[in-house]
Amino acid sequence: MEKKPFVIGLDLGGTNSAFGIVDRDANIVERVTVPTTGHGTVEQYVKDCVAALMPVIERVGGISQIQGMGVGAPNANYYTGEILQAPNLPWTGCIPLAKLFGDALGVPVAITNDANAAAMGEMAYGAAKGMKNFIEITLGTGVGSGIVVNGQVVYGCDGFAGELGHTIIVPGGRECGCGRKGCLETYCSGPGVARTALELMAQTREKSVLRDIASSKIMSKDVSIAANNGDALAMEVLKITGRRLGEACANFMNFCSVEAFIFFGGPVRAGEPLMKHVREAFEENVLPIYKGKAQILLSNLKDSDAAILGASALAL
Amino acid sequence: MEKKPFVIGLDLGGTNSAFGIVDRDANIVERVTVPTTGHGTVEQYVKDCVAALMPVIERVGGISQIQGMGVGAPNANYYTGEILQAPNLPWTGCIPLAKLFGDALGVPVAITNDANAAAMGEMAYGAAKGMKNFIEITLGTGVGSGIVVNGQVVYGCDGFAGELGHTIIVPGGRECGCGRKGCLETYCSGPGVARTALELMAQTREKSVLRDIASSKIMSKDVSIAANNGDALAMEVLKITGRRLGEACANFMNFCSVEAFIFFGGPVRAGEPLMKHVREAFEENVLPIYKGKAQILLSNLKDSDAAILGASALAL
Repeated sequence: MEKKPFVIGLDLGGTNSAFGIVDRDANIVERVTVPTTGHGTVEQYVKDCVAALMPVIERVGGISQIQGMGVGAPNANYYTGEILQAPNLPWTGCIPLAKLFGDALGVPVAITNDANAAAMGEMAYGAAKGMKNFIEITLGTGVGSGIVVNGQVVYGCDGFAGELGHTIIVPGGRECGCGRKGCLETYCSGPGVARTALELMAQTREKSVLRDIASSKIMSKDVSIAANNGDALAMEVLKITGRRLGEACANFMNFCSVEAFIFFGGPVRAGEPLMKHVREAFEENVLPIYKGKAQILLSNLKDSDAAILGASALAL
Repeated sequence: MEKKPFVIGLDLGGTNSAFGIVDRDANIVERVTVPTTGHGTVEQYVKDCVAALMPVIERVGGISQIQGMGVGAPNANYYTGEILQAPNLPWTGCIPLAKLFGDALGVPVAITNDANAAAMGEMAYGAAKGMKNFIEITLGTGVGSGIVVNGQVVYGCDGFAGELGHTIIVPGGRECGCGRKGCLETYCSGPGVARTALELMAQTREKSVLRDIASSKIMSKDVSIAANNGDALAMEVLKITGRRLGEACANFMNFCSVEAFIFFGGPVRAGEPLMKHVREAFEENVLPIYKGKAQILLSNLKDSDAAILGASALAL
């Protein structure tokens, strides 16, 4: 079957639903944004989205030019096409979103969670182009992951595989939103970075600009900027965070011996001052047979477009 | 292409090379064993093996009845067909064993390491029949693993994926043969079980039959037998070992959300007194979305035949 020139990507967030029409070269040629809330039922939401989408679809030559649509959404299940109990979305229960959009548009629709979509985007258009084995690690409010083995995203028996952010790295460690303790996410997500800053401020007498920010307001961005300006405490926070990530990746390597770990999201905008510690700790801790085999890379998807591109890659 | 009725499995160990001719129902219909050492070159080894094999191949109707051959060997690489620097084998460097046997026999030959072969055997004939996502964990002198995702063994970018025994579960913990510290294998292999017994004998004043055995002689079997006889210290060793395994599996679940973890090897012959702790610790520690989803099973391949059957499954 001949491939059609465009795919639709939907980045479905709690506030906005950002649609993009994407060509084969990863250009978002058309965009439209619909508020996620305020539609009442999910059926009405889909109807309103399609109404907003039709004019832009017409501009690229109509629905006959669209290969399919991909959706990146929290708690989305690739196997079932459903969204299950997503806490930040306005609908409860089990939402058959792929079917609803598929019926309304008349094209195949696939959905998956944000981190898996990012991995797909990375493989189609980004730093993982040409790779068959890699792990995408997305850092933000939480830590997500998309694992690619033999060129395929690992979904597991239930569609929910790839939750490396919930690997327990410190038994009995920091409380996690999942109800357990010591998950990687509690150390290396944005809020995790801030928690490490708080811990260091408690443990040391080191001066730092971070001490002048209310603890509830500290963002990983503040830590990056402070570190960039030579703030020793902030630099130590990046070192601790980077080493935790590197040690975790050294363990992940035992699973699937990847070509690369690709990092994406706010906390890694700190760049080399963080990433050099990830690399160092990875090489120091990895099993000897894997030494020097995996690259530690930053995503090269543009942050603002990555979610749409990733979702769209699902439809390729 | 029509499948032929038999495959050959080779369990290549440091002392013996055990060949079996296996039918479609996992019956080993013919066997022959050749010493692994004493042949000089690997070329002569292959020649001698083939000479020993030919009469048994004739008994099943000749080489035209053989689909192919699979080899389970230490440090074997599925991608390259080579054995790389295996410390217990008589050849050094990089041995192209699959090619040597393939040329000599005129059938396709595939090789992989013992744990991956066990996983293949489990999927073809054992407890994982019909499963597409599971992890085989083999306990013995070390801890090996074979990971199956979407019905395929995970080999990674280099053919060496699946070393879960070298996941660091206790940072800075027990010294491991790999040169690092705190690997799962140092706690849950046969010798790992013995080390836990030693630790408990040091920490407690609990009476135990294990105290009458020289520490270099304690085997996991002694611990199992003692526990079975109500020895409280031995029971505690099984509890600690089982909980470590369960906690490790809870983390492994985040990767590939498997249907089952299947345990194989000497230390798990302890049975329920060990496995109940694996299950308990798994369910207590796994991410809530995975609760109740994975079975914790014992292999149902007969120990003495499992290596041959696993290797033979590679040729299916």
